[in-house]
Amino acid sequence: MEVYEFKGFPNPTRVRLALAEKGLFDAVKFVQVNVPEGEHRKPEFFVINPSGIVPVLELEDGTQISECSAIKEYLDHAKGDPDLMGQTPKSRVVIAMMQHKVEAGFLDAVAAYFHHATAGLGSDIETHQNAAWGERQKETALNTMAWMNDLLADQDYLAGDQFTIADITAMAGFDFAGFAQIDMPAEFTQFATWRDRVVARPSVKIAA
Amino acid sequence: MEVYEFKGFPNPTRVRLALAEKGLFDAVKFVQVNVPEGEHRKPEFFVINPSGIVPVLELEDGTQISECSAIKEYLDHAKGDPDLMGQTPKSRVVIAMMQHKVEAGFLDAVAAYFHHATAGLGSDIETHQNAAWGERQKETALNTMAWMNDLLADQDYLAGDQFTIADITAMAGFDFAGFAQIDMPAEFTQFATWRDRVVARPSVKIAA
Repeated sequence: MEVYEFKGFPNPTRVRLALAEKGLFDAVKFVQVNVPEGEHRKPEFFVINPSGIVPVLELEDGTQISECSAIKEYLDHAKGDPDLMGQTPKSRVVIAMMQHKVEAGFLDAVAAYFHHATAGLGSDIETHQNAAWGERQKETALNTMAWMNDLLADQDYLAGDQFTIADITAMAGFDFAGFAQIDMPAEFTQFATWRDRVVARPSVKIAA
Repeated sequence: MEVYEFKGFPNPTRVRLALAEKGLFDAVKFVQVNVPEGEHRKPEFFVINPSGIVPVLELEDGTQISECSAIKEYLDHAKGDPDLMGQTPKSRVVIAMMQHKVEAGFLDAVAAYFHHATAGLGSDIETHQNAAWGERQKETALNTMAWMNDLLADQDYLAGDQFTIADITAMAGFDFAGFAQIDMPAEFTQFATWRDRVVARPSVKIAA
């Protein structure tokens, strides 16, 4: 398998973490696509993913899979433990719900702030900035952080007692928020503790 | 099971279609939440879904599941044929990828246009409009329509030869685009034919 990515960027990080958790990190070849230089917006890359977004997972038979949530689903099916998406219909749906809320309300919101309300990747790439939209999405990200912080008062991970893809998405969002210089309010102590818990996982070192 | 929804709105339509496809339509009780009157933004509803969005599926044990993609996953696990999300790891991931692309690039984009660049649900509810963002998302929706139209030259449904959750999401987007008065370009003939094919399914009548 090959993964087209740009190392260190948030969505590639999600796939790296999932690979490391599943013990699949050494089974893939990483191919760098230079996003800051706009390589993801060139015709050669649009053939790989018409959405112009990394990461993309290429299977042995040449099938190219984009969209992080789809890639993580593939990895979860591809190999057994640890299970990152739940085993029963109910646990699977709770994890899917949390993953979606964290993605839309946190990671994507931080990304919108970065791309729209800061210099982002520079004027050559950020050709349709909308600062008001970016600032509004920053508020959304902070609201979602507050909600996650409350949740984590009663449970160790975002979907319950088990580390799941929802935590992977939130980890990528946490680091991206730091990179985008969104200050985390000091009162979000449970969220900070959760981050320490996640950073202690071996997968984080493997994926780095 | 109960479903909190507002009948006729796009995301509730997705769940109705999935229920009808799975033969589960009569197994649920629908509870109407009056979205045009802002009932989804009242404290009573925030207890059910902190995101303030319908639909929400309530299981027998009281578990409340929001986020359409999660609800459809539950329904797909809850009962056998027809399978809407694939059987093999590869088919599942292709369907998940297509569903995500259609959701982000089409349905959500149409929704952003409606809520930001038109009167939407009225000034009491649309308190943070951003017309430029809405217009930009309309372009995204049209680009995604063009991409779907091209795809449908070689296959009957969006993820291949089988009707899946990606088609359900696109159906909801198609109807929403009409409601929001986004004109479909006349050259998208394959997309129009796909719509006729989907509308002929018994589930569409059951869900209506």
